[in-house]
Amino acid sequence: MLEIASLETSDKDFAEQFSTLLQRGSEFDTGVEESVRRIIQRVRTQGDHALLELTKEYDRCEASSVSELEVSRDRLRVAPAALSPNVNQAIEEAAQRIQQFHEHQLEDSWELVDEHGSRFGQRVNPIERVGIYVPGGRAAYPSSVLMTAIPARVAGVRKIVMTVPAPDGEVNDLVLAAAHIAGVDQVFLIGGAQAIAALAYGTQTVPRVDKIVGPGNAYVSAAKRQVFGQVGIDLIAGPSEVVVVCDESTNAEWAAMDMFAQAEHDVDAQSILLSTSKEKISEVRQIMEAMLLEMERRDIIAQSLAQQGALIHVEDSDQLLELIHAIAPEHLELLIEDADAVSKKVSNAGAIFVGQYSAEVLGDYCAGPNHVLPTSGAARFSSALGVYDFVKRTSIVSCSRTGANALAELASTIAREEQLHAHARSAEYRKAD
Amino acid sequence: MLEIASLETSDKDFAEQFSTLLQRGSEFDTGVEESVRRIIQRVRTQGDHALLELTKEYDRCEASSVSELEVSRDRLRVAPAALSPNVNQAIEEAAQRIQQFHEHQLEDSWELVDEHGSRFGQRVNPIERVGIYVPGGRAAYPSSVLMTAIPARVAGVRKIVMTVPAPDGEVNDLVLAAAHIAGVDQVFLIGGAQAIAALAYGTQTVPRVDKIVGPGNAYVSAAKRQVFGQVGIDLIAGPSEVVVVCDESTNAEWAAMDMFAQAEHDVDAQSILLSTSKEKISEVRQIMEAMLLEMERRDIIAQSLAQQGALIHVEDSDQLLELIHAIAPEHLELLIEDADAVSKKVSNAGAIFVGQYSAEVLGDYCAGPNHVLPTSGAARFSSALGVYDFVKRTSIVSCSRTGANALAELASTIAREEQLHAHARSAEYRKAD
Repeated sequence: MLEIASLETSDKDFAEQFSTLLQRGSEFDTGVEESVRRIIQRVRTQGDHALLELTKEYDRCEASSVSELEVSRDRLRVAPAALSPNVNQAIEEAAQRIQQFHEHQLEDSWELVDEHGSRFGQRVNPIERVGIYVPGGRAAYPSSVLMTAIPARVAGVRKIVMTVPAPDGEVNDLVLAAAHIAGVDQVFLIGGAQAIAALAYGTQTVPRVDKIVGPGNAYVSAAKRQVFGQVGIDLIAGPSEVVVVCDESTNAEWAAMDMFAQAEHDVDAQSILLSTSKEKISEVRQIMEAMLLEMERRDIIAQSLAQQGALIHVEDSDQLLELIHAIAPEHLELLIEDADAVSKKVSNAGAIFVGQYSAEVLGDYCAGPNHVLPTSGAARFSSALGVYDFVKRTSIVSCSRTGANALAELASTIAREEQLHAHARSAEYRKAD
Repeated sequence: MLEIASLETSDKDFAEQFSTLLQRGSEFDTGVEESVRRIIQRVRTQGDHALLELTKEYDRCEASSVSELEVSRDRLRVAPAALSPNVNQAIEEAAQRIQQFHEHQLEDSWELVDEHGSRFGQRVNPIERVGIYVPGGRAAYPSSVLMTAIPARVAGVRKIVMTVPAPDGEVNDLVLAAAHIAGVDQVFLIGGAQAIAALAYGTQTVPRVDKIVGPGNAYVSAAKRQVFGQVGIDLIAGPSEVVVVCDESTNAEWAAMDMFAQAEHDVDAQSILLSTSKEKISEVRQIMEAMLLEMERRDIIAQSLAQQGALIHVEDSDQLLELIHAIAPEHLELLIEDADAVSKKVSNAGAIFVGQYSAEVLGDYCAGPNHVLPTSGAARFSSALGVYDFVKRTSIVSCSRTGANALAELASTIAREEQLHAHARSAEYRKAD
């Protein structure tokens, strides 16, 4: 039996229902925070020794040294060959498409020269060392490896270090193959907060990196938050979401399957259908009802839809845009006739899939754009992971003598007002000369 | 008496001394975290009421409504006229230069079309509402208002809300004038964690924003960290730092004043001098010694130099570059002959000031580049505040029928390997059609 909320914007308690639907932020958990703080402290002070103990404790994986937990270069190199040829080729092709798209995100350094011959500019350099966290066990997805490592490589990052836990010693060969194809330099079979701590501070064996990206469980997220500042981090990822927009023209079966695809990720994933057409909503609902039992991951799908899913009938396209704006969805599918026009009015969305043929899943794997996207409304203020996340910009100020003269007057005037007299004098020296 | 550490890279305990010098990260303070958590909770649940109580408590500033704590449009408009004309003009000119520089950071949207007519791209939109935190009291700097508000305005942010505490009701007119000149839309006289909470969650009177930027004390930093995810934030700013590099050609008086200018910010600020020339180091030291007592802010300068400052003699330019790389300074001044060549070899620095005429203070106020820069080594992985911090990018996937067909094969192959069968089916629908 399909269980999913049905909302009408005309309902008098719609605002409240809608707001409940969007309460997606995870609550702060003092217990998790505290134990993560202790784990980080242990890794900082005891390095490799702590990593070995923690890996034994959490992943039931024993090793006599952290080097044993590193996947050898040889094993990485042969990993793709161990896959069936069509899978290997699919990963290769996906990697190529992802790389091509991300190459367009490369930024150039630039410099302006003013009338005094002073130069002002911005120099772009890759971050030197990047850590990629990949979740272990069943949630270890090769596509996530491609989506995090390839933009780093395109940016010119010199060293990419990946950590992935191997619970009970089990390693996902697909993940290793993807790591090799994406150009990861080192892989350690370590997970959880201890992996984040090792990457942030370095141990005898695990190199310290400058930035850590990639999704993880509550412990990993708490650890990333705690080491933020010591290293850079990407956004904290929440459960994945899609908003599917339908009209009379939409193939209801496709819409239903796209809702399922989102829901099968995990029970916290959120699938929302929006439409001005009551008939289409009801058609999609019937198809979902009919097809649910055929789905391999039906239990997860059913629970996700029952807990987080919704079918929302909106009055008109203004209302439609208003709801999309408020949700700021990670993924927005516009399976409608005027998809292109509507897409141009949306500014809060991680990725927009325009038209019926643009299934979100094509973007998940191989269309080219990144699938690491802002969740939980973070599309209001942030973007897909990209090459821009793996570079840093250095400002350049190079004043000529006459140029400094002109600026020194301004700087000294403001500095004196701010009561920063040494600032003023430093400027005035360049003026008097 | 000038007190400042003198280090030699050839000292056998140099590595240890150097590492102590760079221990700049502030330690986690459970007390601050807890009281900030309570403040945020109060503002979330009680809105304006909590803001009034907290403002009375922390800023000794009583108001009967939060509207009373908002600076009226009229007051903002007349603020510049209240300044002396040369100050007003200096702020105006600085604002113009900052704006011109930041306009070069604007990014275009782009789109690729493949052989199937499928389109893949990236659309850039401004963040809608931005909050700017400005510290109150004596540390309220008009230049900080310009440096945070102007990039937001250049990005196209629709609403800029500024908060600045008014301890004992005292407001800095320079700050209000800068806010008006920079195009800030609303100013509230609120500070601390309560201001951050109000901006992050909104109250009856203070609008909720999408991103909060700007420096603050330990409470403000803790609050920004805690609301991160609910809203975007910029980097957590630590104490300000400069590395001044000298050679035989350097004007020692200028170098000394540049060290003082950094040190006068506050006792936690850090000024480090690097040189291959022992003679120049000793010359700068003598000048600092001689001039210290003339300095208006000599107590702060003396304490800052004693606690955080250092003069470091390096053997050669390789060692020089190595130390700069490890420090990843917020500001790097190259007061040397081959400044341009050296600057090109530096990738870890927030801003580089190239040549003797390029005093850091010119950049602080008016050269054009932003003065909100990564501190405490964060230049390894992050950049000056810029227009890029006030936009977000939305990925666009728009597949043609034949384009979807080609991608669907790839996507379905990988999805099946990942055991995500609804993903595979969603892709296959687009293939079969």
